[in-house]
Amino acid sequence: MKKNLNPARGMRDFLPSEQKTRDYVERKIIDVYTRHGFHLIETPVVENIENLLGSQGGENLKLIYQILKRGNKLNLDQPNLTTDDIVELGLRYDLTIPLSRFYCNNRHDLPSLFKSIQVGNVFRAERSQKGRYRSFKQCDIDIIGNASIDSEIELLTVSAKALLSLEVSRFEIKINDRRILRDVILYCGFEHNEVENICITLDKLDKIGLSGIEKELRGKNYPDLAISKILKAMTSINQKGLPSLYELGVAENIISEIQKLVDTVNELSNGDYQAHYDFTLVRGMGYYTGPIFEIVYKDLGYSIAGGGRYDKMIGDFIGEDIPAVGFSIGFERLVNQLIEEGFNLSNTASLVLIYDDADSFVEVFSKADALRSKGHSVSIMPRAKKLNKQLSQLKAMGYNKFCVMSDLDDTIKSID
Amino acid sequence: MKKNLNPARGMRDFLPSEQKTRDYVERKIIDVYTRHGFHLIETPVVENIENLLGSQGGENLKLIYQILKRGNKLNLDQPNLTTDDIVELGLRYDLTIPLSRFYCNNRHDLPSLFKSIQVGNVFRAERSQKGRYRSFKQCDIDIIGNASIDSEIELLTVSAKALLSLEVSRFEIKINDRRILRDVILYCGFEHNEVENICITLDKLDKIGLSGIEKELRGKNYPDLAISKILKAMTSINQKGLPSLYELGVAENIISEIQKLVDTVNELSNGDYQAHYDFTLVRGMGYYTGPIFEIVYKDLGYSIAGGGRYDKMIGDFIGEDIPAVGFSIGFERLVNQLIEEGFNLSNTASLVLIYDDADSFVEVFSKADALRSKGHSVSIMPRAKKLNKQLSQLKAMGYNKFCVMSDLDDTIKSID
Repeated sequence: MKKNLNPARGMRDFLPSEQKTRDYVERKIIDVYTRHGFHLIETPVVENIENLLGSQGGENLKLIYQILKRGNKLNLDQPNLTTDDIVELGLRYDLTIPLSRFYCNNRHDLPSLFKSIQVGNVFRAERSQKGRYRSFKQCDIDIIGNASIDSEIELLTVSAKALLSLEVSRFEIKINDRRILRDVILYCGFEHNEVENICITLDKLDKIGLSGIEKELRGKNYPDLAISKILKAMTSINQKGLPSLYELGVAENIISEIQKLVDTVNELSNGDYQAHYDFTLVRGMGYYTGPIFEIVYKDLGYSIAGGGRYDKMIGDFIGEDIPAVGFSIGFERLVNQLIEEGFNLSNTASLVLIYDDADSFVEVFSKADALRSKGHSVSIMPRAKKLNKQLSQLKAMGYNKFCVMSDLDDTIKSID
Repeated sequence: MKKNLNPARGMRDFLPSEQKTRDYVERKIIDVYTRHGFHLIETPVVENIENLLGSQGGENLKLIYQILKRGNKLNLDQPNLTTDDIVELGLRYDLTIPLSRFYCNNRHDLPSLFKSIQVGNVFRAERSQKGRYRSFKQCDIDIIGNASIDSEIELLTVSAKALLSLEVSRFEIKINDRRILRDVILYCGFEHNEVENICITLDKLDKIGLSGIEKELRGKNYPDLAISKILKAMTSINQKGLPSLYELGVAENIISEIQKLVDTVNELSNGDYQAHYDFTLVRGMGYYTGPIFEIVYKDLGYSIAGGGRYDKMIGDFIGEDIPAVGFSIGFERLVNQLIEEGFNLSNTASLVLIYDDADSFVEVFSKADALRSKGHSVSIMPRAKKLNKQLSQLKAMGYNKFCVMSDLDDTIKSID
């Protein structure tokens, strides 16, 4: 079989310089989350296929990598073979389904109110395009066992702090609620079974504007009256904000809850960032049941974190609903943006100790250890035929200092 | 579809207390490796199936998780369907094949002598048994581009230092060489194509003893003379060590190279551990070409790290051999052993701030931040109906201190 040098389609190799940044960012986020009393857990990247296919992941269900059955369980000779006959496992497409299964499986060993951190790769066989990867990392925090809006406040505030710790500051928080979307859409005269499709259209406001939304809804032959009502509602919500929802069929307690969420997040932000209500925030997953939210780069318009409340998912596993809410930082976008802005860790000092065949390897090792004990990261390297070429390669790897074993004066030189 | 609460067969959920230890151990190993001039890289867990099936992974090739083709590429209606027709990707079974592909794919951006760190999960659909997992973590260091035995010395010494940094000390290093195994087996009169099978039998000395080996070889109908010669050779090597190999058909330069490896590792060990030559060390992978080695727990007899030289693998990808050698710490065994020995991180102070509905959430947050600024990890928790039950749950999670928002005196109490 011919071998292929490339990573699998849509997946990536990370070279040392990028991986160093990725590792730094990941540890920084975990550190902030840990200091706020969240606990690191780990779940497998592989899940039983029925848990994935039976989840409300919207479009993501079509993007699942499916793993073949093994041994006697795999029978390719049956008539009318379908993938269901030959598949038993799949790669997870998010961290929320595995977390819910984890919680249910281990709930007797976990506290009633559980705050988790999960950092790991998820897999979606997306159509390849710039900035879309088929394996990508998510950093999630979740609070399970608390129905209060306090949990949303905490997740948003702690995630914002994690970004601030990385000196990311030009972001804002958008907040909406699935119940508000549903109530307003029904109030305007659409049917229950149309709510999801209307949401998908509303989500496009940024891209196609109000007139584009009108065109799309008319194209789908919804009643004229409902269309004009929803357009009027959107204008009104855009101008008057949350209070306008009182006249659009939304329950008072929901409005005041979201008002409290927005206000408290802003109060805790110290002015470092702003949260506001956004009726056109929808989010793709089918499993959200209440508040939903995103952190968006102000200038760029794209989201770097998103989440929401999913009070019914645990009930899907154990038949008993347990409130849960989560927030996920899209690690890839965050790191790409940091690198684009010139984020650079290469000024951390690393040193190369160059030796040649005449040197005692034991002495080389001892000298390297002595330099390490002074705080340097030290790599030992045999001298290449062309020292200058070797030094320029090492410089490209982030080394800025070197010394040569046979030099008597022990000086550490800069790599220019 | 009925949902399943368990992780996929042979895979595991990691709860906070265990994950905390795992994370600590992983970071400690990475820290030692980084300070010694190795560079963290990352490769995807998914590889193109031809790279996995076309590799010399021995028995592991039968244990590969295979991922189904997608969309139009997947045709289940063909006659005489085989897995090759429907599979395009697989989960990696080690980190060495992905590293070789990575190196080939990125060699123009890497230095001629490259020292890498890879930490990640690998997947093998092993028969389930205690201590065998189907997804497990490996921590690898590799040196690519150096044919000298210096690289073996460095890998062994640095890996031993990583273990010492975790206060693991009751280990020893076993060293052998694939070329020695081959030369001795041929010298005793076996055929070229029998070498691999003889190795598999020799590997069992610990379990079945010399008489067991004799029985197994006779059962396979090898020539009597060859069998008596190999048994005599084993006794001789066991008594006289490396020098006995001069009389067993092994080239002088190989013997002196391995002698230098053993001696130098011992010289650099500071007496903290011992390395010795072991003719019955075989290791399973087919891709090793020279020295092979393991770190073994003395009392327990099982290996916690293993590796060797694989000078031909990169040539398999690009048609040009580049020397390479690697060493892999079996993370799961190491962590399990540490936990069994009572390794415990729960004495790191974490504090719970308990509040109730009457408290202002903004004030709760501010007080928690004030406590964090004094160095505590602080989790905020609403008061449960039964405070004592809540405190005992929190204690089980590793919390040892708490304070209550409404207490006027601000005292931090111990959780007993």
